[in-house]
Amino acid sequence: MPIPARVNLITLGVADLARSRAFYAALGWTEAQPADESVAFFQLGALVFGLFGLEALAADAHLDAPGAPGAMSLAINLPSREETDEVFAAAIAAGATALKSPQEVFWGGYSGYFADPDGHLWETAHNPFWEIRDDGSVRLGG
Amino acid sequence: MPIPARVNLITLGVADLARSRAFYAALGWTEAQPADESVAFFQLGALVFGLFGLEALAADAHLDAPGAPGAMSLAINLPSREETDEVFAAAIAAGATALKSPQEVFWGGYSGYFADPDGHLWETAHNPFWEIRDDGSVRLGG
Repeated sequence: MPIPARVNLITLGVADLARSRAFYAALGWTEAQPADESVAFFQLGALVFGLFGLEALAADAHLDAPGAPGAMSLAINLPSREETDEVFAAAIAAGATALKSPQEVFWGGYSGYFADPDGHLWETAHNPFWEIRDDGSVRLGG
Repeated sequence: MPIPARVNLITLGVADLARSRAFYAALGWTEAQPADESVAFFQLGALVFGLFGLEALAADAHLDAPGAPGAMSLAINLPSREETDEVFAAAIAAGATALKSPQEVFWGGYSGYFADPDGHLWETAHNPFWEIRDDGSVRLGG
C-alpha cells in the first residue's frame, strides 16, 4: 500500500495545556467539544489541529525525552501584504510573541513570524507565487 | 481582521536537505519542481509541505538557536487497523525509524509512530471516532 501523501492531524506538544487552550481561543479559534481533559482539538478546514502535553506526546511516541519547539513551523498564507500585516498584528494582540515583523524576504514574498506560548513557530506570509483558493487552501504555482 | 483558522504550509527544519529529500521521495511522495536549491516543497492535498535547513529556518524566524524535533507530530489517519499497519511498514521499509509499532492506545484507537531522519515525529493512526472522507481529509466526529 502506498503511503498517503497527506497530513490529517498536527499535534503540538505544550507545557501547560490550559495556557495553550487560552492562547488559541484568544486567536478566535473554536475548540471542538473536548473528548478528554488531556487534549484539545480544533477543526482547521480539512485537517485537525491538536494540543497535547509535551511529556504526554513524548510518552505516546516512545521518545526518551520531549523535543523542543522551533524545529518546525506552521504558516498561514494570505492573499496580500496588508492582510499579512493585519493577521500578524491580531496574533500579537491576542498574546503571541513577535519574532519577526512581516517584511520583504529573500524569496520574493512578505513574511513574519510569531511564537505561541511554548515557542512553536507560526508564520504569516504573502507568497505571490502561490495560489490561494477561495476556500483558503493553497496550491503551488507552476 | 480575524486570524484564519488554517494551516497552509508545514515546514520541517532539517539538518541535511539532500538526505531528507531522499527520505520523502522514498515514501513515494513527489516533490514539486524546485524553485530554489535551499528548499523542497510537496503538494499534500490542499496544503504544502516543505523541507528547509534547520539553521535557515531559525534564521528566517529570527530564533537565536534552532529547536529540536519531537515537540510536534504530524499524523496520517487511515480507515482501518490493517491499513495503519501497512502504511507503518511501508514507511519503515522506506527508511523511517520505528518508534512505536501500531498498537491499541488508551484513547480507543490504534496508533504507531515513526521518525524521519531528523527525528520529526510521524504518527499513523486509525481513529474510529473520526470520519475519513473519500478525499483523505478528516472531520472530528460529533
